[in-house]
Amino acid sequence: MEAYLDNSATTPLCSEAINKMNYAMRTCWGNPSSLHANGIAASELLEESRRIIANKLSCESDEIFFTSGGTESNNIAVLGAANAMKRRGSRVITTSVEHSSVEDCFQQLENQGFDVIRLRVNGNGMIDERQLYAATNPSVILISMMYVNNEVGTIQPVEFAKRAAIQSGANAIIHCDAVQAFGKVPLNPYNIGVDLMSISSHKIHGPKGAGALFVKKGTKLNPRTFGGLQEQKIRPGTEPMPAIAGFAAAAKAMPEIKDSLAHATALRDYFISRVSAMENVTVNSPANALPYVTNISVLGIPSEVMINYLSNMGIYVSGGSACSKGRKSRVLKAMGLSDDRINSAIRISISRFTTKQELDYLLTGLASAQKNMKKMK
Amino acid sequence: MEAYLDNSATTPLCSEAINKMNYAMRTCWGNPSSLHANGIAASELLEESRRIIANKLSCESDEIFFTSGGTESNNIAVLGAANAMKRRGSRVITTSVEHSSVEDCFQQLENQGFDVIRLRVNGNGMIDERQLYAATNPSVILISMMYVNNEVGTIQPVEFAKRAAIQSGANAIIHCDAVQAFGKVPLNPYNIGVDLMSISSHKIHGPKGAGALFVKKGTKLNPRTFGGLQEQKIRPGTEPMPAIAGFAAAAKAMPEIKDSLAHATALRDYFISRVSAMENVTVNSPANALPYVTNISVLGIPSEVMINYLSNMGIYVSGGSACSKGRKSRVLKAMGLSDDRINSAIRISISRFTTKQELDYLLTGLASAQKNMKKMK
Repeated sequence: MEAYLDNSATTPLCSEAINKMNYAMRTCWGNPSSLHANGIAASELLEESRRIIANKLSCESDEIFFTSGGTESNNIAVLGAANAMKRRGSRVITTSVEHSSVEDCFQQLENQGFDVIRLRVNGNGMIDERQLYAATNPSVILISMMYVNNEVGTIQPVEFAKRAAIQSGANAIIHCDAVQAFGKVPLNPYNIGVDLMSISSHKIHGPKGAGALFVKKGTKLNPRTFGGLQEQKIRPGTEPMPAIAGFAAAAKAMPEIKDSLAHATALRDYFISRVSAMENVTVNSPANALPYVTNISVLGIPSEVMINYLSNMGIYVSGGSACSKGRKSRVLKAMGLSDDRINSAIRISISRFTTKQELDYLLTGLASAQKNMKKMK
Repeated sequence: MEAYLDNSATTPLCSEAINKMNYAMRTCWGNPSSLHANGIAASELLEESRRIIANKLSCESDEIFFTSGGTESNNIAVLGAANAMKRRGSRVITTSVEHSSVEDCFQQLENQGFDVIRLRVNGNGMIDERQLYAATNPSVILISMMYVNNEVGTIQPVEFAKRAAIQSGANAIIHCDAVQAFGKVPLNPYNIGVDLMSISSHKIHGPKGAGALFVKKGTKLNPRTFGGLQEQKIRPGTEPMPAIAGFAAAAKAMPEIKDSLAHATALRDYFISRVSAMENVTVNSPANALPYVTNISVLGIPSEVMINYLSNMGIYVSGGSACSKGRKSRVLKAMGLSDDRINSAIRISISRFTTKQELDYLLTGLASAQKNMKKMK
C-alpha cells in the first residue's frame, strides 16, 4: 500500500489536466504569438485557460498573468512592486512565516536598503493585527502576507493588510501568496483587498511549470524579465502552453470548495483524534488551521529519520517545505516551538483524493516507527 | 494539405517527448526536492534529464541549469553576469541582431549606466570581427553574441568573442544565445570559448516551458530569482518536471547533426533555386546561412497579408520573430535592407521533419498570392 500525504509539496495530476496537456502537446502545439492559424489556435487555448483561472478568482481575464510557477509569481510581485513604488517610500511589511520565495525577496529588498518589517506570529502561527497596524505608516509601499501557511496550515487575516494601509494613509500595494489556499478556500482578491495574488498549478493537481499572478487593474508593477511582448511584457517568453492548459484544466476540475473542505475536515479531525492519543506526539498546527495541512511532532524521532522510515513503508510526508530541503523550519521557530518539537516535526498534507485508509496506514507507520526506534535505543 | 514552415517559432513535439511527458505526469510526478521515495524518483528523472542535455553539449552535468525557456536563460545570463561583474568594468558588448530577450536586457543595462556596444552587421547579417576587436578593452565584462540568427539564419563567428577578450586583457564573461543552433550545428561551449550558453526545448521538438543555461564552472553569475534551493539557487522554484523530461527526451531523439543538416541543406537549396526564379522575390538570407532558416521578400505584398493568405491555405510561415509579433524587424534593418524588402519579408523555417512536398505547396502558395494580389490592384 502507498499513502501520498505530501500534497503541500506537490500533487498527483488529475486526469483532466493530463488529457488537456496531451491535447496541447499533440494537437494545439503552436506558438501563441504566431500570426497564422496554427498560432491562433494556441492563442485561443491560452486565452481560454486565462478565462478559467480568472473565473476561479472572480476577476477579469486581463488581470491574470501566467508565470512558470509560484516562485516566479512571488518574485514578480514582491520585487516588481517594491521597485515600481520605491520613490514613494521605503518601508515594506511581511510576516516571519512566509515561504522562502517571498522571504528571500524581502532579504533582497533589505540588502537594497528597504526598511523591512517582519510581523511576529504567536504559537498558532498567526500574526497580531495590532503589530501590523502599528507598523503601517504613510511610507509603507508594500505589504505581503501569505493566505495559508504551507507548513502548519494557519490562515492569516490577510484582509487586515488593506485596512491597515487605508487607516494609515499608506498608498501600499498588497500582495498575497495564495499558493496553498487556491482551490481550498474561496478566494476573491477584491474582497480580501489585495492587488497582487500568487497561485500555482502543481498544488491543485495540475502540472509543474505553470502558475499565475493576479494583478489588479492599475497596479504599478515593474517586470523582472525582458524580451518579447507576452503577458503584457510582465512575463515575456513563449508561454509554457502545455502546462498552462493543464493548470486551467485542473482548476476547472476542482469540485465545490465547501465539499472538498468538508472531506478534508472530516479526515483531519479523525487523524488528530487518533494521533493525539499516541504517546509523545504533539500537534503543532492550530485547531483552526486549514484542514489540508497538519503538522505534528513525534518527540524523540528526528524528522528526517521518520520521513525515511515512513518512505520505506510507502508513506510520503515531509519535514516542512520541500523548497527548503534539509533546512530547519523558520516557521516553527517563529511560532516559538522548542528545538525538540522542531527537530521531530513532520507535515501531513492531504488533498481531495486522500482516503481514510491512507491516514490509517500513516497511523500504523507512526506507531511502528515509535516501537522500532525504542528498540534501537 | 498543411505545411508547417515556422519551426524557428516553435516545433511540433516528437513522440519521444510526448511519451516522456506522459511518464512524468502519470508515474513520476513527485517534487524533486522531497526527501521521500516519491520525490527521489522525480529527482532521478531530473538528473537523468540533466545528463542527457550535458552530453549533447559535451559538458559536465553540474554545468547545466534548467530554466523555464530561452528567454529566462538569456535574462539570467546577461543580467546575472553583468550584475556579478559590475565592479570590474562597465563596458558590455553585443550585436545589433540579437533576439529581443537579449537586446531588451542590454537596454536595461544601458538604463543602469553600462556602456553598451552593439556590433553592426553587414548585408549578410554578419558582424565584423575588426569592430569586435576594436571595441574590446580591459573594461569589458560581458560579450553576448547569438550563434544562429533567428530571422535570417546567419551564423556568427562566436569564437572570436573569447579571442578578442583574451587579446585585449579583458576578464569578460562570454555568453551565447544558441537557441536556434542547438541540435542543428555541433555545439561545444568549451571549444567555442563561451562561459554561458542558452538553449530551449520547444525549438527542438520538445515542449514549451523548459530551457537550459550552460554555466561553465567558476563563472560568476548572480541569480535573478530568489527562493528555494533548486538549481544551485541560480533558478529557484519547483522544477517544471514534465517539460524538463520532455526536453531531454527530445534532445536524446535528435538524429546525427550531419544527417539532419544534409536533409535541410538539400531542401533549402531546392527551395531557393525555385523561389529565385519567381518574379519580384529576393532572398534575404546569406548563401552560407544555416539552411533551416530562409528569409525572402515577395515585393509588393506586405508580410502580414502574405502570412494570412498562406495561413488560409494551411501554410504557416512568419514575418520574423514570433516574440516580436507585429513589430518591424530590427535584424533586416540592421542588415541595411530597403523598407520595401523589410515590409514584405517572410521567414521560412524548416525542421528535420519538413518534406519537399511542403515546400512545393509553399511555392504554389506564393505564386497564388502573387497572382491574386495582382488581380486586386
